[in-house]
Amino acid sequence: MDCIFCDIVNREEQAEILFENELVMAFLDIRPVNYGHTLVIPKKHFDNFLDVPRDYLDELISVTQLISSAIKTGLKSDGFNVIINNGAAAGQTVDHFHFHIIPRFRNDFNYRPGFKVYTDGSIKEFADQIRNAVIK
Amino acid sequence: MDCIFCDIVNREEQAEILFENELVMAFLDIRPVNYGHTLVIPKKHFDNFLDVPRDYLDELISVTQLISSAIKTGLKSDGFNVIINNGAAAGQTVDHFHFHIIPRFRNDFNYRPGFKVYTDGSIKEFADQIRNAVIK
Repeated sequence: MDCIFCDIVNREEQAEILFENELVMAFLDIRPVNYGHTLVIPKKHFDNFLDVPRDYLDELISVTQLISSAIKTGLKSDGFNVIINNGAAAGQTVDHFHFHIIPRFRNDFNYRPGFKVYTDGSIKEFADQIRNAVIK
Repeated sequence: MDCIFCDIVNREEQAEILFENELVMAFLDIRPVNYGHTLVIPKKHFDNFLDVPRDYLDELISVTQLISSAIKTGLKSDGFNVIINNGAAAGQTVDHFHFHIIPRFRNDFNYRPGFKVYTDGSIKEFADQIRNAVIK
């Protein structure tokens, strides 16, 4: 299977690698939303968030925290966003699971598409649809 | 300290709670980007992502995965975004750590503010600034 992130893990493709351990790798996104935009990936291939097993998940979020702290310190950013885009409808363009970490600066841009309003108790209907789908 | 999310945890404020265990709670955001927009929080108060200890972090990402799956199934969404806004510059409005899960549907909106370009080998300079700040 052709996967650019697997190629980076296997050193068949160049990247600015920031961190690596047995399970996880972090490197710079070459198409950054802000400079220093980082991707954190499992070194084993999983298509998306729902496929990632618990041991990888724990390590991924822990390394994401570590690198977020380094971005804040190293780039003197005012804040950062951590983002998973899951599925093409959510903006996922590489089908190898990854966290984005995006350094943020005061007044750089607005990340929000606007808000909706729940009308006439519809919030409970949406909640019920999700609650009923939780696998206990 | 006055914290709306602590009030929800303590049942002093109403919310559509989707899931709860010893460490973590998930409920609907009352100001949704899309209907079904969910927040996953630690029941103990931590201001932001960098303050959350490992045991909570592991449980938070695991419950975020569980609820993301329920959102996809229950709301028949095409995908979803998982987002941490860390710091006011990144859009954090409640200083009690939370993951957002936003159901996404084909062509509902574009979440990206556009891309920057690394010029003249500047990508290595940004990488070095972050690498040098990673606490080994």
